[in-house]
Amino acid sequence: MAWERKISRTVRVRNEQTVGRLAHLLLAISEAGGAVGDINMLTETSLHVVRDITIYADDIGKFDVILEAIRANEGTVVMDVRDEVLELHLKGKIAIRSRYPIDSLATLRKVYTPGVAEVCLKIARDPSLARLYTSTSHMVAIVTDGTAVLGLGDIGALAGMPVMEGKAMLMETLVGLSGIPILLSTRDTDQIVDTIANISHTFAAIQLEDISAPRCFDIEERLQKRVNIPVMHDDQHGTAVVTTAALMVVSRRTGIYLSNARIGQIGLGAAGMGTSKMVMRLTGNPVWGADLNPDALKRFEAAGGRPSNLIEIMANCDIVVATTGVAGLIKSGMVRKGQIILALSNPNPEIDPEDALRAGAAFAADGKSVNNVLGFPGIFRGAVDANAPYITNEMLLAASQIIADMTPPGELVPNALDKKVHLAVARAVAQKAIDQGIARADYVPYVEE
Amino acid sequence: MAWERKISRTVRVRNEQTVGRLAHLLLAISEAGGAVGDINMLTETSLHVVRDITIYADDIGKFDVILEAIRANEGTVVMDVRDEVLELHLKGKIAIRSRYPIDSLATLRKVYTPGVAEVCLKIARDPSLARLYTSTSHMVAIVTDGTAVLGLGDIGALAGMPVMEGKAMLMETLVGLSGIPILLSTRDTDQIVDTIANISHTFAAIQLEDISAPRCFDIEERLQKRVNIPVMHDDQHGTAVVTTAALMVVSRRTGIYLSNARIGQIGLGAAGMGTSKMVMRLTGNPVWGADLNPDALKRFEAAGGRPSNLIEIMANCDIVVATTGVAGLIKSGMVRKGQIILALSNPNPEIDPEDALRAGAAFAADGKSVNNVLGFPGIFRGAVDANAPYITNEMLLAASQIIADMTPPGELVPNALDKKVHLAVARAVAQKAIDQGIARADYVPYVEE
Repeated sequence: MAWERKISRTVRVRNEQTVGRLAHLLLAISEAGGAVGDINMLTETSLHVVRDITIYADDIGKFDVILEAIRANEGTVVMDVRDEVLELHLKGKIAIRSRYPIDSLATLRKVYTPGVAEVCLKIARDPSLARLYTSTSHMVAIVTDGTAVLGLGDIGALAGMPVMEGKAMLMETLVGLSGIPILLSTRDTDQIVDTIANISHTFAAIQLEDISAPRCFDIEERLQKRVNIPVMHDDQHGTAVVTTAALMVVSRRTGIYLSNARIGQIGLGAAGMGTSKMVMRLTGNPVWGADLNPDALKRFEAAGGRPSNLIEIMANCDIVVATTGVAGLIKSGMVRKGQIILALSNPNPEIDPEDALRAGAAFAADGKSVNNVLGFPGIFRGAVDANAPYITNEMLLAASQIIADMTPPGELVPNALDKKVHLAVARAVAQKAIDQGIARADYVPYVEE
Repeated sequence: MAWERKISRTVRVRNEQTVGRLAHLLLAISEAGGAVGDINMLTETSLHVVRDITIYADDIGKFDVILEAIRANEGTVVMDVRDEVLELHLKGKIAIRSRYPIDSLATLRKVYTPGVAEVCLKIARDPSLARLYTSTSHMVAIVTDGTAVLGLGDIGALAGMPVMEGKAMLMETLVGLSGIPILLSTRDTDQIVDTIANISHTFAAIQLEDISAPRCFDIEERLQKRVNIPVMHDDQHGTAVVTTAALMVVSRRTGIYLSNARIGQIGLGAAGMGTSKMVMRLTGNPVWGADLNPDALKRFEAAGGRPSNLIEIMANCDIVVATTGVAGLIKSGMVRKGQIILALSNPNPEIDPEDALRAGAAFAADGKSVNNVLGFPGIFRGAVDANAPYITNEMLLAASQIIADMTPPGELVPNALDKKVHLAVARAVAQKAIDQGIARADYVPYVEE
């Protein structure tokens, strides 16, 4: 699929106006290893057609091969090559906006001195009013130290900023929260906890993001003890929520019930630990786990998991979830007949779903189909709306359940950009907080502005 | 003046349709001690007129007296009393926005995984590209510990949030920067410096705000040594820039030249120290300074100032700037004939300008006329555009100069909401950074989007 390719370029071509010219060109692109996305016609004359063609490739070297193939195509002239991804990132993807204009000195005097003083004094007398009269009510810190960014690993917080901005865009677009990226220049656990705790009054919740295991476990736990707003490490819990939802959907479809199935987790980093803990709480049974790191296996065992290995899990488990970051780790020969396989590493899965199905799997999917975008926006919105001081396992499970319930027939999870789903997640999470008695304020469900 | 009052309410009144009814009502309001702002007519019939009248009062008790007077006014019915300031603060005044919509999965894949990975890797290889491809290029931290908020003093960071949001609105509105409030829950100097340094990679600049003296001096100096982006304590330098601009304008108007004048500074907190240091650099002469705190006087002397006291300064100085926060500190009897007096404490000045003029001052103004909103937006925009690692005294002076130059005839400073002035300040500050050789990047002057 085109979307699995890592890079994309938009190539502007001028084709001669002859029958089948575009088809020939597309054939040349795919034979050179490219995948084609959008094609937009810009101008057409009796002689020529000018089009923008978005082309996906695995890397820039492979793209150059594709470009040569386009250039070699008879009747085609390459007019321009653009990197639309970079263009979209110019100057960044987010900004602070005023919620209404300062269009006069009268407004200035209301939002700034002297008018603002009265609002400040109200909050000084009753700090809970900050939730009503300041933006702390919708600001969520998106904090990273850049040690585990996407599948790229330790590239540093600054290089992780485009991902943090993407999360902030999604929070705003899907549930109206203001995600504020916070880039840490320290990797020391104590310093990280102190730093975030010291600025926590600014926010309604804290999303930890792309912080490497095992530090992420410690940081999340210690920070949550220090602050009375929800702290969630998305790579653990957001991913767990969406993966568990997908497992619920597959379970219904295949008739392999989660509580009876032997479930294996390959890779026990943040995502793997989060998912297997959630599945164990859901089923009451131990998950089989594999990881090359003996410390990870020990943590897994302490959490109630059954230490195992790749070969044993593939040979014995009905359901296998892989989150190793190692492309192609699972060979076709390891697949058991009737097995369910979620090979979730991005951008390249542990086994191509088509290969897994060909090898006898009953169901197979990769990370593109289990998008963690479905989790964090609604979870945070619900926790913030209920003014919950933390996020419970039951709130996370409520999120999984509603995501599974709203999955359209034939799909593994809902469309990640479907706002109805995110609103439903928010309400389910808030309702669970209320049911559990941890909601602290008059609950006002989020309604899009 | 209406603007000096601390609180405002909007009163909806229904008047009988008779000649002079509104005039009578306004007379009653002003006799009860209220000042009238906007008056908007909502509906009119042959019998009645309904209007919203914005009324300013010194405090809520005084407003109640005014309201009684309105109710007692013949032919007037009070229909509603609203607090528009509070209404404007509901849910806060700022939010994060996406700079373009995520309207399709194709866009999602460009701004988030997998497309974003390529941008991350580019920045990992060359961190200077973050300036080009992330929002760090326009994000400015607005950091407070809430120890010296407006004239209110130590009300805590959370209660200071409405002020920080006001600053962020102004940054966005006037120069397109994204101000991000950061509320500190620690007051320990070491912790504050560590905390801000640890998150500094998120930002293009750091504005320190409403942090009490003398900690503010230390924090600013130590933080600037730790980070390579501009750090500016607005209460010191922003105020100094605008006050100095006002002094330049008065000097031209009165013919009392700053370099020949005896200049006194009453109150040596953040604003007073900032202003007197700037004036001393400009004139080369010591400023006379007064403060009840002996430590403040020592710091002032160490900075080249001449320790003095209130009486001596009023008796000897040609120009007096007061920033004490003590309303009415300067009595009419202390005013020297021909003196220039800027009594800048908000919301109530050390001496009412009209009283000062009546007592013989050649020129007098209060804090409403010397709005520090004129300083910080353009200073930060210019420093950020030039990618200067810090803000020099010369850059600040360039800001004062251009503000003075752009002041319309008869005014003390320009209109604080005039974007042309802020753009001019930004360009002057950036140009000075270039002239001084500390601009680090291709300078691209800010143009409104």
